[in-house]
Amino acid sequence: MPASTDSSARKRAKRTRARDLGIHIGVYPRGRFNAITDVPGVRVGHSTLISGDVAAEPGGGPVRTGVTAIFPHRGNIYTHRVIGSGHVLNGAGELAGLTQLMEWGLIETPILLTNTLAVGTCSEAVMRWMVERNPRLGTEQDVIIPLVGECDDSWLNDIRGRHIHHAHVFEALDTARGGSVAEGSVGGGTGMITCDFKAGIGTSSRKLPVGEGGYVVGALVMSNFGRREDLRVDGVPVGRALSPEFATGSFHDRESLYGSIIVVIATNAPLLAQQLTRVCKRAALGVGRVGSYAAHGSGEIILGFSTANLIPRQPKGMTFKIEALLDQRIDALYRATIEVTEEAIINALCAGRTMTGRAGHVVPGMPLERVRSLVRDSRRLPELQRS
Amino acid sequence: MPASTDSSARKRAKRTRARDLGIHIGVYPRGRFNAITDVPGVRVGHSTLISGDVAAEPGGGPVRTGVTAIFPHRGNIYTHRVIGSGHVLNGAGELAGLTQLMEWGLIETPILLTNTLAVGTCSEAVMRWMVERNPRLGTEQDVIIPLVGECDDSWLNDIRGRHIHHAHVFEALDTARGGSVAEGSVGGGTGMITCDFKAGIGTSSRKLPVGEGGYVVGALVMSNFGRREDLRVDGVPVGRALSPEFATGSFHDRESLYGSIIVVIATNAPLLAQQLTRVCKRAALGVGRVGSYAAHGSGEIILGFSTANLIPRQPKGMTFKIEALLDQRIDALYRATIEVTEEAIINALCAGRTMTGRAGHVVPGMPLERVRSLVRDSRRLPELQRS
Amino acid sequence: MPASTDSSARKRAKRTRARDLGIHIGVYPRGRFNAITDVPGVRVGHSTLISGDVAAEPGGGPVRTGVTAIFPHRGNIYTHRVIGSGHVLNGAGELAGLTQLMEWGLIETPILLTNTLAVGTCSEAVMRWMVERNPRLGTEQDVIIPLVGECDDSWLNDIRGRHIHHAHVFEALDTARGGSVAEGSVGGGTGMITCDFKAGIGTSSRKLPVGEGGYVVGALVMSNFGRREDLRVDGVPVGRALSPEFATGSFHDRESLYGSIIVVIATNAPLLAQQLTRVCKRAALGVGRVGSYAAHGSGEIILGFSTANLIPRQPKGMTFKIEALLDQRIDALYRATIEVTEEAIINALCAGRTMTGRAGHVVPGMPLERVRSLVRDSRRLPELQRS
Amino acid sequence: MPASTDSSARKRAKRTRARDLGIHIGVYPRGRFNAITDVPGVRVGHSTLISGDVAAEPGGGPVRTGVTAIFPHRGNIYTHRVIGSGHVLNGAGELAGLTQLMEWGLIETPILLTNTLAVGTCSEAVMRWMVERNPRLGTEQDVIIPLVGECDDSWLNDIRGRHIHHAHVFEALDTARGGSVAEGSVGGGTGMITCDFKAGIGTSSRKLPVGEGGYVVGALVMSNFGRREDLRVDGVPVGRALSPEFATGSFHDRESLYGSIIVVIATNAPLLAQQLTRVCKRAALGVGRVGSYAAHGSGEIILGFSTANLIPRQPKGMTFKIEALLDQRIDALYRATIEVTEEAIINALCAGRTMTGRAGHVVPGMPLERVRSLVRDSRRLPELQRS
Repeated sequence: MPASTDSSARKRAKRTRARDLGIHIGVYPRGRFNAITDVPGVRVGHSTLISGDVAAEPGGGPVRTGVTAIFPHRGNIYTHRVIGSGHVLNGAGELAGLTQLMEWGLIETPILLTNTLAVGTCSEAVMRWMVERNPRLGTEQDVIIPLVGECDDSWLNDIRGRHIHHAHVFEALDTARGGSVAEGSVGGGTGMITCDFKAGIGTSSRKLPVGEGGYVVGALVMSNFGRREDLRVDGVPVGRALSPEFATGSFHDRESLYGSIIVVIATNAPLLAQQLTRVCKRAALGVGRVGSYAAHGSGEIILGFSTANLIPRQPKGMTFKIEALLDQRIDALYRATIEVTEEAIINALCAGRTMTGRAGHVVPGMPLERVRSLVRDSRRLPELQRS
Repeated sequence: MPASTDSSARKRAKRTRARDLGIHIGVYPRGRFNAITDVPGVRVGHSTLISGDVAAEPGGGPVRTGVTAIFPHRGNIYTHRVIGSGHVLNGAGELAGLTQLMEWGLIETPILLTNTLAVGTCSEAVMRWMVERNPRLGTEQDVIIPLVGECDDSWLNDIRGRHIHHAHVFEALDTARGGSVAEGSVGGGTGMITCDFKAGIGTSSRKLPVGEGGYVVGALVMSNFGRREDLRVDGVPVGRALSPEFATGSFHDRESLYGSIIVVIATNAPLLAQQLTRVCKRAALGVGRVGSYAAHGSGEIILGFSTANLIPRQPKGMTFKIEALLDQRIDALYRATIEVTEEAIINALCAGRTMTGRAGHVVPGMPLERVRSLVRDSRRLPELQRS
Repeated sequence: MPASTDSSARKRAKRTRARDLGIHIGVYPRGRFNAITDVPGVRVGHSTLISGDVAAEPGGGPVRTGVTAIFPHRGNIYTHRVIGSGHVLNGAGELAGLTQLMEWGLIETPILLTNTLAVGTCSEAVMRWMVERNPRLGTEQDVIIPLVGECDDSWLNDIRGRHIHHAHVFEALDTARGGSVAEGSVGGGTGMITCDFKAGIGTSSRKLPVGEGGYVVGALVMSNFGRREDLRVDGVPVGRALSPEFATGSFHDRESLYGSIIVVIATNAPLLAQQLTRVCKRAALGVGRVGSYAAHGSGEIILGFSTANLIPRQPKGMTFKIEALLDQRIDALYRATIEVTEEAIINALCAGRTMTGRAGHVVPGMPLERVRSLVRDSRRLPELQRS
Repeated sequence: MPASTDSSARKRAKRTRARDLGIHIGVYPRGRFNAITDVPGVRVGHSTLISGDVAAEPGGGPVRTGVTAIFPHRGNIYTHRVIGSGHVLNGAGELAGLTQLMEWGLIETPILLTNTLAVGTCSEAVMRWMVERNPRLGTEQDVIIPLVGECDDSWLNDIRGRHIHHAHVFEALDTARGGSVAEGSVGGGTGMITCDFKAGIGTSSRKLPVGEGGYVVGALVMSNFGRREDLRVDGVPVGRALSPEFATGSFHDRESLYGSIIVVIATNAPLLAQQLTRVCKRAALGVGRVGSYAAHGSGEIILGFSTANLIPRQPKGMTFKIEALLDQRIDALYRATIEVTEEAIINALCAGRTMTGRAGHVVPGMPLERVRSLVRDSRRLPELQRS
């Protein structure tokens, strides 16, 4: 059984978001939920596991982990695939299924996010879940390779204990829905840390003007990278300012530990796989703007998909006609991709509350009022504010 | 419990190899076992699952699958890594862990080969196996991302039934050893097919002359690709010759099915990761010489490693000194890599006996005497024979 | 002025082709000219420079070099681009413009082939030629980056003398036409060598059956790679057989020298850039089948384009509709690509006559009757012959 | 003859740099010259062409262009190569020689920067220059493929007129030296524009603390990308603030025009090619921090080299020993790479004075006092200032 229900996790994780702090990244307006689910059809589900004694032995707890599932549309992703691609900024991590995604440019399973040692479990559970729902899978029809991304949550979570089971994966899959998305210490992000503050899941969206196609772009991140002193919020070096206040604590040892981030970009713009590869490269620039230098041990991997064209599993004929965005019109999507990636990470930080975990490690939440004040002061001049 | 013991599988699979048919691919001499295990320290283990009624319903059998494990050396691969890399000829498949391998150029887990839907299980089992043997993994020390390659064996195997369990993976890991390697329908290759003949696991090795460094190069393949008419044995189009004899049977429907091949290259030549990437690219040429055109749905993935330099997990200091082959001396390794890849596939075919599996599908073994005769006639002229 | 006119070069180079020797590579029928020009609209032009004393000092001759130009269609390639891509088997060479080709997937200049030290000259001359024909290029409209591939012909040619001038490039561009294509020691291939025999330019084509789309695939190679003992003709190890006959001569020193090959693939199948990337990867398998191991110093680079969709320079609107081949129907193109690449190289060898060049170096032509006889004997059995 | 001597160009270009405006990017101290030449041995030379009537017809002027040359060390780069690599953020541009650089990981020519249509000329001139200095090049020894990067300066420069000749390239090569480096409208950057302000060449360096190896990292950029409203100076959105002041002028038409940036990273840290690839990827993050979204038409290409190991052209033996930085120690280099890239671009902007060029186009210099004031106000709080 899941260690906690998703609904309680949503409530607990509900918190301030970047815009509530007066942070306005970029130029494009946000979508209704300011979430990846603003791309019509996209659904997100979480399974959050928080339990156990912080002093337990490795293998026996505490549990601070989970699973997040993303579906590109409301139908059967096995029979109706979407075009997708990815980009590896730094490959010190895993996105199972990436090889086939890069070759075929197709997404045919949900996308799962979890901890590093649960990739196999998630992959197996998704496979089971899809086999049950697709009776010809693996007989008349092709097998699948699930997409599962990971970050290492072992600073807070007893990762050796392998606490994620198939039931948790099924929970994330079965509860996926549109609308607002819980952020922070939920789902795959439950035990994640960004720039030495508690973070986890974050999301954001932008809606392009009609003259630039009117498309929606959304990001969902599982954010777990970076060092405090490098943190930038919309260009303001808040990490530098906050570092003295957090100079003591259990984080002294964390210097050499590794992080990671998985970014998922969704859009309803009609993009070919090669265009999505390029969009994913721009998401990396958004990660960089928050302060990432893509550390040696940080797996910084981006995955993207377009919901505009559904690709049937068993097509007829020899050729097909596909609608695609003109390359000359793609720059607005690039800018929006950077914006949603940056804001999704900040949202993950805003939602992440102080957490105590494995070996008594304490990871503080980002001090929201301090950040609000620092950003406000840096943007005192009206000309530096977004009109 | 494993469906059959490895020793009985070895006995059953014992059979003719390419050299016994007068096939002499390339110019370099073979190693003692003509196997990847000729590279000192390399160990191979199989777990072979053959059981069940061929008429059973999907999900209930028959079982024609397994797991193969490769260890780059005799010690603890977690604490003493080897340099590795890979190459994707066609990415319609999965080699879990490839992203990190390409970024870091290090192998820090055993390499597993299995069926497509067992990748998650293998990954989780390897993780368990290594967590048990490395008490600081996931606490003071980094987590791991296991290397698991797959091919689709669903033509013969009830892949939907998920018959591989952790115990099978442990068997492959625990029984890995040097010396001769069972080929054909064993381990991960149990249900595999190549050019419409029964194949599976194959291996081969070459020893370079002292003047070219005296290095050993070995390949182990899990071979599952191609169409009969394209099969070439040392350049002789035996597939074309044999096709009329096999024109009838259950294979009429197989035309549109997909295959795959995973190639593992090992050497004791001191190679850097970038050099291994290049070596792996040459293995793809060896696959091509057997008749592969790297079909759209065929996951053709190569992985390579060098045992010459062990890379400690926790190094000291700022820099290190490493010995590497001069690029100008690498051509002999390229040629040997092509030779071992080609011969390993032919060996897999030579060892593969006729098998009946799921839905009563029958896959014939390659007719060895016919192949011997075709090759002999094509190399009648003494000048076409290897001196 | 060109050192020789293209028409005399064509006459001189006219010679036997692979099919005249009873060599039938693959399964698909050849096009009318068995040339890249069988793809409707594709045009080829050569400028061949053969002059000078073989005993001249470096910098003063002899001249054994040239330029080949390929146009994807009959119109203005600057205003009406085609979709293209490329693949690097071994990057020890140059295909100027490759970076932009891989990013945009568009070809907007002719494709030039020449010697290594003439890449700059060709690039500049193409630029001049296109500036003159496109008055808004570089003012209202974008600049261009010409596609120029190279191999090193310095064993026969006084490459230090920089004998290629703009006039030669213009000759290749201005004389480009459809129909039969001169092969061997013409154009960019004038001084080129393959497997220690005289080679240079070669071409071939295939026409797919109507049931596989009826598309045409053509290859043109500038072939300059390999060692004699590795040469294979349709799988027959003729290099091994011929080596004793050519054991003496000035080639003793050539062992350590580098080669290269540039392959250009054309098709009228409607392919997207990502599909063309994959097609180009298969051409590499064709190079491998002739005996290449992609030596450390051999620049083996493939470029491909589809003539099916013309992409206007200045499109209107936000999106476009494009017709593309279904990925599931691409395998026939892969096979045909391997076939035309292999046969184009063999054709280059068949057309290459013995040549004496720099420092008195003599490169023999491939002994055609010997090759015919070796292949015939290896395919004595009717079942090994193509039906 | 060059249109202006390099010394006068240096004087004219001498101007404020980022640090003079109170801009302190990152955490590491600058090198003595805050230039790529702080890496011992690195030399830079410019040839600057500024002449001609701004109202002249296309092809007849005005000339606003040039050539910049970078030598990795003081010796003969042909006989003593350095390890190098590159990364393509967006490939809408050209870095001739990149393919071989990525394959071999070696730099064996100087690095040239110029305008798009002068790549061929520069390539040819470098080849001539090196042929003259290396009598065995192209006979006993290998040919070369010069490294030449480009950006499009056609908004200010009469690029159709092809005003760069071999003499200019020789001037840049022959005047290359260490010490301070002229910035702004000099050399290849003469006609370049960044975020709609005059820019061109910029450079910066960092010196790591002894505890992180004490290495020097330098960048030199030819910067020509972006839109005014996206410009960020150390995170401060100065472009947003300045846009209203520059809303009128000839730039209305420039919206759809393309830019580019070439970044060259140098270090004396002992890096392997694969490590340099990763360093170059981080430089892309530095470009992003200034405001680049890597527009569809912007060729954003990075090249890097390490001067620590000289690689002889003709090595002896079978293997070599090389010293390399431990991967676990590379993060400081990553951070410094981002810092020098960002600052080099800002320096290019600081040095770029208002210029009038082709068709009367006027590109304003960045208003330095306004930028100083904006940055100062955004960093009013002491805690946001660098200690």
